[in-house]
Formats: sequence, structure tokens, C-alpha cells
Amino acid sequence: MQPLEMVCLCGSYDLKSSFGPAFDRFPDIRLLRPQEVDDPASIRHAMAFKPGAAAFDPYPNLELVCSVGAGVDALVVHPGLKPDVTVSRLMLETQAHAIAGLAAWMVIGWTRRLWDYADLQGRREWNADYLVQPSEVPVGILGYGAIGRVVGEALLALGFPVLGYAGTARQVGPVDVQSGPAALVEIAAKSRALINLLPLTEATRGILSADLFARMPPDSILVNLGRGEHLVEADLLAALDQGRPGYAALDVFAPEPLPEDHPFWAHPKIRITPHVAGEGNFFEVSDWIAAAVRQFEAGEPPQGLVDRTKGY
Amino acid sequence: MQPLEMVCLCGSYDLKSSFGPAFDRFPDIRLLRPQEVDDPASIRHAMAFKPGAAAFDPYPNLELVCSVGAGVDALVVHPGLKPDVTVSRLMLETQAHAIAGLAAWMVIGWTRRLWDYADLQGRREWNADYLVQPSEVPVGILGYGAIGRVVGEALLALGFPVLGYAGTARQVGPVDVQSGPAALVEIAAKSRALINLLPLTEATRGILSADLFARMPPDSILVNLGRGEHLVEADLLAALDQGRPGYAALDVFAPEPLPEDHPFWAHPKIRITPHVAGEGNFFEVSDWIAAAVRQFEAGEPPQGLVDRTKGY
Repeated sequence: MQPLEMVCLCGSYDLKSSFGPAFDRFPDIRLLRPQEVDDPASIRHAMAFKPGAAAFDPYPNLELVCSVGAGVDALVVHPGLKPDVTVSRLMLETQAHAIAGLAAWMVIGWTRRLWDYADLQGRREWNADYLVQPSEVPVGILGYGAIGRVVGEALLALGFPVLGYAGTARQVGPVDVQSGPAALVEIAAKSRALINLLPLTEATRGILSADLFARMPPDSILVNLGRGEHLVEADLLAALDQGRPGYAALDVFAPEPLPEDHPFWAHPKIRITPHVAGEGNFFEVSDWIAAAVRQFEAGEPPQGLVDRTKGY
Repeated sequence: MQPLEMVCLCGSYDLKSSFGPAFDRFPDIRLLRPQEVDDPASIRHAMAFKPGAAAFDPYPNLELVCSVGAGVDALVVHPGLKPDVTVSRLMLETQAHAIAGLAAWMVIGWTRRLWDYADLQGRREWNADYLVQPSEVPVGILGYGAIGRVVGEALLALGFPVLGYAGTARQVGPVDVQSGPAALVEIAAKSRALINLLPLTEATRGILSADLFARMPPDSILVNLGRGEHLVEADLLAALDQGRPGYAALDVFAPEPLPEDHPFWAHPKIRITPHVAGEGNFFEVSDWIAAAVRQFEAGEPPQGLVDRTKGY
């Protein structure tokens, strides 16, 4: 049987060279660069990561696009992607674990002032502050879905009380996940750390704004691991001046890379990481995508199926 | 009924002023400073934190000493403490959570090089390295007891494989805890991060030594949250020069505070925190001690009962 051909669409990277070794394990799937495609009309499958504006145009018969990422906000509204094309996104537990690690690191580092010990060490100073107990630091998680649940469980295991917010209210293990605008501000008011993991949709764009910040307690930390577009940048700068939140750890920006002249870089209350929260391992990502392709070919919903009307 | 009198013995702090407000909730227990004791022979209960060499001498009828700390290595060998005195130590889940937080913070910070992003931010540099997945970082936990289990569960929830070592081999949840010298070096060889939480006893003194370091992989991190005396300092300095381990995060030292002229302070591969892994909240510590006292008075073994022959 001929292998199924999957075209790799990315504006920045050569996905085939990255994922080729992992896909060599799957004789039923052959990766192709766009320039290697003989008959674009025969292509029914694509994997995509930040595809260019015209990336989908040559392929009139595309049926499935597998996102090489958990966030598909740019993909679902891509003007070149016809509405009937099925989109699957990554939902890897390992990626969620990595995101949980960065989230926990920022919450622990801020609440216990662990970053400051490097300066004390440089001055040979032994100065132990009173320890803030994790039980005294409620953590609000905005976006309590597949990733949020893993982040929440890690924080619970570290002793933090966890408050969850999502598009739909539901009980997830010990967490009573809330929904709606009133719950959102209530969670902001109760949390000493607020972690954003929401998908970017029209409903969530700009959700991290002055209204929310005004409810946050002094000395709280905002951790944005969602998308830069969730954040109203000017509102954050004004809010940090007023001390609510007390600090912000930002991993995502609009645009990326963060421009060199951006005020976030030198802000004393902002810690920047360059979108490193959760990168998937090539082999695990390939396993996920190959399984989604096979499910789709068998007439089943592929894993990570995106509701394109909701945008996640 | 007269309240039971409990003398506060500490060489450095006024325990009564720290714990007084919390003990005011317990009308059955009255805290006393040594100078407030009228009849030392009537004192049967003490709470102790780093008691001085002669601290116990005035109290011939002491029956129970409650340690204001999880580690009782100094207490069990204290020459002024008669062998038949019962010792209870703290075993607070909140303290274990705090210890888990520092352990996780060091492991995540080192393996993902999160500390380096502050320098990059200072230079306005956007430079995302390949992310090390937690699943690629086996973490060895030396001392898989009440605290080790909580640390292990937090690391498992963060996606790290966990290897456990303890005085007694046993299955603890998903972790097959090993025991004995052969298991110890095997765990060191398999772990990218090695966290020491062992109690300090004659069997564990100096256990973090050249033999163990030689088995650790390059690029691994040693995290010592046990006692300074677990570590052979000269061996660590030589091992870091050879790159096994690649880094050390030390929270405990012999002696504390770490002397100003100590070579650890300025070592580029050592991160120092001033014994802040897990401090108990005064109220939670008081709850624990009051419950231990009441159990003891009722003729039951007090919670946190120490086997003085084992030393923990």
C-alpha cells in the first residue's frame, strides 16, 4: 500500500527535517515539503505550525490539518483554511507537565522570593525570611481544560489551593471549576497567583485587563502562558505601577519575538521567558499526529479534534 | 484543672514569644520560658529547637520533648537528654509541601536553565533553547519517608519519573523505594536530579560523597535539603570540577549560618539558600505539638514519635 502523503506547512521552520526521523518509524505516512509535492490536488493531509498566509492555497482537497502546537487560534481563523477542513491540535500530557513546571516555578519563585537569594549569595548574606506556606497562596487557573487540569494537579500536589476557571463550569477532581464574568473576577480577587492558560478566542482576547487587575490582591503574581493577545499591555503596566498584581511572569507576547524596544524588557516587575512553557518532544508529537491521522482515515474523530466554531 | 506546663528550650530564639499567640488557643497547656519556671522538678514537658548544651539539666523529671523541627539528629544525641525521655518530631504535610516546592524549583530551574532567562532579559535577547521534558529527567529522592513521599508525589505530578531510596525498601504508591548501598549508587547513576531528604544518623553522615558523585551523570543536579553533615564538602567541590554533578543547590550547611569565608558562597556551580526549604507555620506547629502532648498524656504514643535508637 502506498503511504499517505502529508505536507509540512510552516512559515519559519523546515518541519520535515525536524520531524523526519520520528516519522521514519511510520511507513504509512510520508512527510513532504511543499516543493516535494508532485500533485497538490492529491494532498489530503497537512501538519502545520504558523503557516504563511498562502500556505494552504495550493491544496484544494485538504481534509485534515494537524497543528504542531496546542493553541490553534491562528489556524482556525486562517483565511486560506476552508471551514470544512478538520483541525486536530496537540494535547500531550508531557507538554502539559512542562507547562505545569514553568507555572509552578514562577509561583514558587515569586511567593517565596527565591530569586532574591542569588543576590544575597553574591553578598555572602545569610538572611532567611519567613516562609510563605503554599497553603496561604491560592492559585487561580484560567483555562481549566486538558492542560489546566494537569497544571492544577501539580499545584495541588505542591500544597497550593487551586481555583479553576473555564468556558464551562464543571467539577474536575477536587476543583470546582467556575465559569462566567462574575466567577472570573471572584477568582482574581481570591488568588495570590493567577495563571492564564485560556485558548485565544474572540471571547478571551484582552481578558487580562484593568478590570481584572483591579481585583487582584497586592503582592499577587500574574503568569501568562496563554497568548500575548490575552493581555492588554498598557493595562498591565498601569496595574503594576499600582501594585495589583505585584509582579508578572510573561511567556507569550504579541508579537513574538518581543520587539527589542518593548517596555516589558526592562520592567523591574516583569519576568520574561521566550515562549518556552511547553514545547513537545519531536517523537511524542509525531506519535500524537500519526495516531490522529490514522483515526481520521478510519472514519473516527481524530484525537485533539478542534471545534472550529469555538476555536479550541 | 491546672494547665500542664511546657518549658521552651532554644539557644537562639524566644520560642514563647513566637508560639505564645498560637498556644493561647489551648487552655490546657501553658508555655514557660526557663526563667519563668518556679519548680523545675515539676516540669514533665518541653518544646525544643536547637537547645543549648545545658538546656535540659534543670529538669530531672522530663518525660516528653517536642521538637520544633522535622530533623531531630541534634536532639536524639543531646548529652543532656536522658535515654528514657520520649521525643516527638514535626511531620507536617504543609512543611513537606514547602520542601517539595523548593526541591521542584531547583530541579526545574536547573534542567530548563530558567535562571539564565533573567540575564537574557537584561540584554533584551529572545533565545529559546530546546526544552528538556520532565519525562527525560529522572529524579532520585534519598529519604522516601513522610516528607519524601510528598516531594515524590509533587514531582510525579510535574511529570518527572521518581526513584526512591530509604532505610527500608517498600512500595510507596507508584514508587518502588529501594534500600541499601547498591541501590543508592544505582539511583545516583540513573538520576538527573538527586534530592537528599535523609535523616542525619551515623549511617547517613557523609553519604553525599565522592563515591556517589562519581556515579552521577554529567549535567545532573544535587539538591541537599537534609543536613549539612550529609555532605562531604571537599568531595563536592572536586566533583563539581569534574562535572558530576553539574550543579548543586544547597539549603543546609554545617555549621549554619554558612561562614562568610566559605568557598561555597562564590562557587559558580553552587546555589545557596539559607535553610528555607520548609519552615512550619506557628499555628500549624502548635496544633501538632498540642496534639502530641495530649496523646502522650492519654498514655498513647505521641504523633511524630522518634525511635531514639534509629534517630528519626
